[in-house]
Amino acid sequence: MHGLKPGDRRVRVRRPHARYFRYEAPGLFVAKPSADEPSGPLGHALATARHALFGRPLSSEEEAHERLPKWKALAVFSSDVMSSVAYATEAILFTLLAAGTEIFGYLMPISLLIVGLLILVTFSYRQTIRAYPGGGGSYIVAHANLGTMAGLVAAAALLCDYVLTVAVSVSSGVWMMASAVPALLPLSVPIIIGSILMVMAVNLRGLRESGTIFAGPTYLFIGLMLVMIVTGLVRVLAGDTPQVTGAIPAAVPVEAFGLLLFLRAFADGCSAMTGTEAVANGVPAFKPVEWVNARTTMLVMSIMLGVMFLGTSYLAGVSGAIPATNQAILAQVALATFGSTPLYYLLVAATMGILILAAQTSFADFPRVASILAKDGFMPRRFAFRGERLAFNAGIVALALIAIAVIIPFGGRVEALIPLYAIGVFVSFTLSQAGMVRHWFVARGMGWRRSALINGLGAAATGVVAVIFAVAKFSHGAWIVIVVIPILVAAMLFVRREYARHEAALAVRPDVVIARPHRSQRVIVAATAVDRAVVQAVQAGHTMVDEVDVVHVAVDPEEGERFRDQIMRQLPGVHVAIVESPYRTLVRPLIRYLEVIHDEDPEAVIIVLLPEHLEAHWWDRLLYNQNAGEIRRALVGREHIVVLDVPYRRELPEAA
Amino acid sequence: MHGLKPGDRRVRVRRPHARYFRYEAPGLFVAKPSADEPSGPLGHALATARHALFGRPLSSEEEAHERLPKWKALAVFSSDVMSSVAYATEAILFTLLAAGTEIFGYLMPISLLIVGLLILVTFSYRQTIRAYPGGGGSYIVAHANLGTMAGLVAAAALLCDYVLTVAVSVSSGVWMMASAVPALLPLSVPIIIGSILMVMAVNLRGLRESGTIFAGPTYLFIGLMLVMIVTGLVRVLAGDTPQVTGAIPAAVPVEAFGLLLFLRAFADGCSAMTGTEAVANGVPAFKPVEWVNARTTMLVMSIMLGVMFLGTSYLAGVSGAIPATNQAILAQVALATFGSTPLYYLLVAATMGILILAAQTSFADFPRVASILAKDGFMPRRFAFRGERLAFNAGIVALALIAIAVIIPFGGRVEALIPLYAIGVFVSFTLSQAGMVRHWFVARGMGWRRSALINGLGAAATGVVAVIFAVAKFSHGAWIVIVVIPILVAAMLFVRREYARHEAALAVRPDVVIARPHRSQRVIVAATAVDRAVVQAVQAGHTMVDEVDVVHVAVDPEEGERFRDQIMRQLPGVHVAIVESPYRTLVRPLIRYLEVIHDEDPEAVIIVLLPEHLEAHWWDRLLYNQNAGEIRRALVGREHIVVLDVPYRRELPEAA
Repeated sequence: MHGLKPGDRRVRVRRPHARYFRYEAPGLFVAKPSADEPSGPLGHALATARHALFGRPLSSEEEAHERLPKWKALAVFSSDVMSSVAYATEAILFTLLAAGTEIFGYLMPISLLIVGLLILVTFSYRQTIRAYPGGGGSYIVAHANLGTMAGLVAAAALLCDYVLTVAVSVSSGVWMMASAVPALLPLSVPIIIGSILMVMAVNLRGLRESGTIFAGPTYLFIGLMLVMIVTGLVRVLAGDTPQVTGAIPAAVPVEAFGLLLFLRAFADGCSAMTGTEAVANGVPAFKPVEWVNARTTMLVMSIMLGVMFLGTSYLAGVSGAIPATNQAILAQVALATFGSTPLYYLLVAATMGILILAAQTSFADFPRVASILAKDGFMPRRFAFRGERLAFNAGIVALALIAIAVIIPFGGRVEALIPLYAIGVFVSFTLSQAGMVRHWFVARGMGWRRSALINGLGAAATGVVAVIFAVAKFSHGAWIVIVVIPILVAAMLFVRREYARHEAALAVRPDVVIARPHRSQRVIVAATAVDRAVVQAVQAGHTMVDEVDVVHVAVDPEEGERFRDQIMRQLPGVHVAIVESPYRTLVRPLIRYLEVIHDEDPEAVIIVLLPEHLEAHWWDRLLYNQNAGEIRRALVGREHIVVLDVPYRRELPEAA
Repeated sequence: MHGLKPGDRRVRVRRPHARYFRYEAPGLFVAKPSADEPSGPLGHALATARHALFGRPLSSEEEAHERLPKWKALAVFSSDVMSSVAYATEAILFTLLAAGTEIFGYLMPISLLIVGLLILVTFSYRQTIRAYPGGGGSYIVAHANLGTMAGLVAAAALLCDYVLTVAVSVSSGVWMMASAVPALLPLSVPIIIGSILMVMAVNLRGLRESGTIFAGPTYLFIGLMLVMIVTGLVRVLAGDTPQVTGAIPAAVPVEAFGLLLFLRAFADGCSAMTGTEAVANGVPAFKPVEWVNARTTMLVMSIMLGVMFLGTSYLAGVSGAIPATNQAILAQVALATFGSTPLYYLLVAATMGILILAAQTSFADFPRVASILAKDGFMPRRFAFRGERLAFNAGIVALALIAIAVIIPFGGRVEALIPLYAIGVFVSFTLSQAGMVRHWFVARGMGWRRSALINGLGAAATGVVAVIFAVAKFSHGAWIVIVVIPILVAAMLFVRREYARHEAALAVRPDVVIARPHRSQRVIVAATAVDRAVVQAVQAGHTMVDEVDVVHVAVDPEEGERFRDQIMRQLPGVHVAIVESPYRTLVRPLIRYLEVIHDEDPEAVIIVLLPEHLEAHWWDRLLYNQNAGEIRRALVGREHIVVLDVPYRRELPEAA
């Protein structure tokens, strides 16, 4: 390959080294995996370790294989919804407790109301899945049918709730675990944070592995819950109703019973429904035919949720469960039903497992929504960028960190997080279904009236619930979400405006053919000393013009003369200008000097070469003044000046 | 001036615009003040405001006028030492209080011991001033005579104590003020911080104004103190001994009286002597003959300190003053002597004033010591750089910020800061005087034996005191200083090593004549899109070679083809290479491509142009990936590659 004639460039470009690239066409190279591998033994070892932890890199073409069969999809998309039976009943009772245990009879009516709402929403979303086989997240549907603002409000609401899903689910899982092993209670917060980081790591591996990892615990949980409900019902029918013992009732501020308390209990119970939209968001992850499989999965999921939620609430009511400081409601019911048997501990473990994994739903959807927003320019572009394993790394890491930041101030207490929860989901439910109504009126396909009616009912119901949430839970924490959503929307609009302005400022008119520069030019090196960085810049200058000027700002006249002598001795043919600065400033006199040079010949382009020492350590910032940066900021953007930074690295990585 | 022939460069350089520069010789321009003025109405307004606050810029030649007459020098350099009478007596009593008021009789013996030590140190430093008319700070003397390590230990100790001087003096001043106006006590910390920032601002104006501002309060304080002492003595002689009333005694942990407690009381009282070395450090600020004026000033200062300190201690003893929660000792004595007269309030005000101004001594010396260390390469260079007003701005600002950082955790309580105080001063006293002994043995000028004896006695005495400090006050806070000093020394050695390594790595051998580059070269623009920044880089590339290559890493093959088409259409004659990256990485495939290019012709230099969007806002960091920086870090320093950043600014400051 070597030994070609120096001038024969075309030939060289067409024969690149085959080690790193596949040569496809003139000037078109496709990188092989080897091109992404770091060189050097340390870099190689690190890459090997990363691949062991997160799997080998996947090329973009491998995406199609990352689809999920229904049974895996159910696990990935339903762990949130399913697991909420672990805290929804408790959330209702916790609120009712304020008016005394006498009113616990309202538990079943409230639960039935919620299941009714669930049925409505499920059928409503089945319409969405059919209409948006490419993924019908609330943002997409609201954006397409109701406009940008509605879309962004839906997106912001969803993003908030994804964060809260992670916070509530993992906190609840650790609370469940501590119900069985009280010694762990003081360690709750560190365990919660560790669990979130674990889920994050699993997600950085990519989607396919996630499905495999999460299927086991999900099905174990569903199975054990059904066994518990059946066992409990049989015992009730046999006259041996399970009775809760050993619960230490929680102390809560006393309130009189009234409509507001009832609505708050209902609102808190609606946390059971968060995550219902997950399947609709994730349609493209299903195997073909995607929308059919997604609809089936959604229906199965809602039925299972309804059964488990009603069963748990019923058993909690008959067994005398009460919100306690030492045991979660579900743990009380399970203990009363199974007794202190291995089955009890297995159910606690499975609940804990599915709750921690429930965060997975958010880890699947938050990055997906963020990437859609990023592609539309509403979020920083890095959220749209997929990592080696085809996962949206930025979104995954951001979700984990924000969730941890939310958990810490609340100390990981589920009952403190619940009032913030679900409001975002119902806002996005409402906008999404309202958008669907509009969709049907515009599309008018087969059976559009029926679809529009279903979606309209769904939108009306969830809209009313969202208003109930805002009113009933406002002072209990919902205000935080109500404040954050508009801030997020504003931030997203700001991001898009910034991108648009940036693009407009940089845009080259597409019809213009840009000619080569023809103006005369001067090349000036701004030097603080005669060192290798300056020599490199002078050499670079010589590739542009025959005669390079070096300008030096001297605070001390003698030092200026020494500089001139050294340049004239060591870099013959370079012209030196010394600018003495009696007021000890360095930047502005240099700029004024360049302005003077420009004024003398306004037609010429001045190319300013700035030798720059590349920072090797963080402390270099303290040791060296960043004059180059200041000069650059002052000069860049002037019409007649082109600034070129010439970075120099102290230690040569190869030659050293 | 315009209209010259384009090639006629020499002529243009020799006739710069007279608006900004004085033309001295071929290629030598001296900046006028106008060259430092910002352009534009906003910049001009800001500069005017800055000059109003901090004074007009001073050129380096104006330095000689910044010398101080003796009476001003006394105010500038003595406020620290003088003001310590406000807290030294209180510090002794506070420590003695632990063993009960019965042992307050030790106050006078301890005070006399301290004055004895003061006399010894004063005469010792008079030798130093004579031997080092250029400024005989502890660092200079110890460094010159005992070596680098001794010098750095002395310097680190001094820097610590300058910080503590600011903290103790200002805290004590505010405590004095709150003694007379109790309502201010809860606001102590904000008032302390505000006062430090005020002193900082005064110092940024430069030294001369400082002398003028500080002379008044200093002489007012000295005068009032003498009036108080004389009044008190007359009343004692007249049988009308002043009696303290209304003091609420402070509660302290009880200790048995013993040698350690006595030594601690003595050590705390030695805080009176901090600042004694200020005059020796500041000799060059005196008017000529500098060393003679400095010696006189030093003697006057010590005599006044001795008189005021002994007078205060005596009156505190006879009047029954006791450390209190509501009143400083000096305030008690003044109230007992003067009664609640205007004279009392005037003394409180003057004490408060001189204490806050005492910080001035540190603001005069800390930046001076820091600048000497910076010139020797032991501290970041910016500490050696003087601002517009000939003040060492970096040192002034650093001192203010560090002092504030020390005050906050101690809540501005003087008695908590005192145990940390003075140990640094006595360490540097000892090293400085030991260095002087060695100096006399080497120099052997007239009367060297007597000088060596005086310095030897001083070194021995202060050395013993320093050991007493370390032992007696160790657990009361002195350990902090004992830990910080070696850390500072290590940091200073590290800084010098870094500068030395940096210089060695960048050094050009002074005997080498560097020839022009003669290797063949390729110019490659790394582009992510076809935008103005890329067009600018291509144009810059055309100034170097006829044929410019553009390389583009494409994650999506279609996007790559669009890129190629657009370049070929809009930038004819530019050669395009597309590198497809199926694994979605951008940086490493580009680097591998450049390596391939290099391997094909190892003799050629590859000039890589990196178009860069200059960040306009802090949020640009979130919105745009900094790939250019990553590519630069990976490429710079390779032997055959020269990297040139081509920054582009979105908004043109002039053309927009």
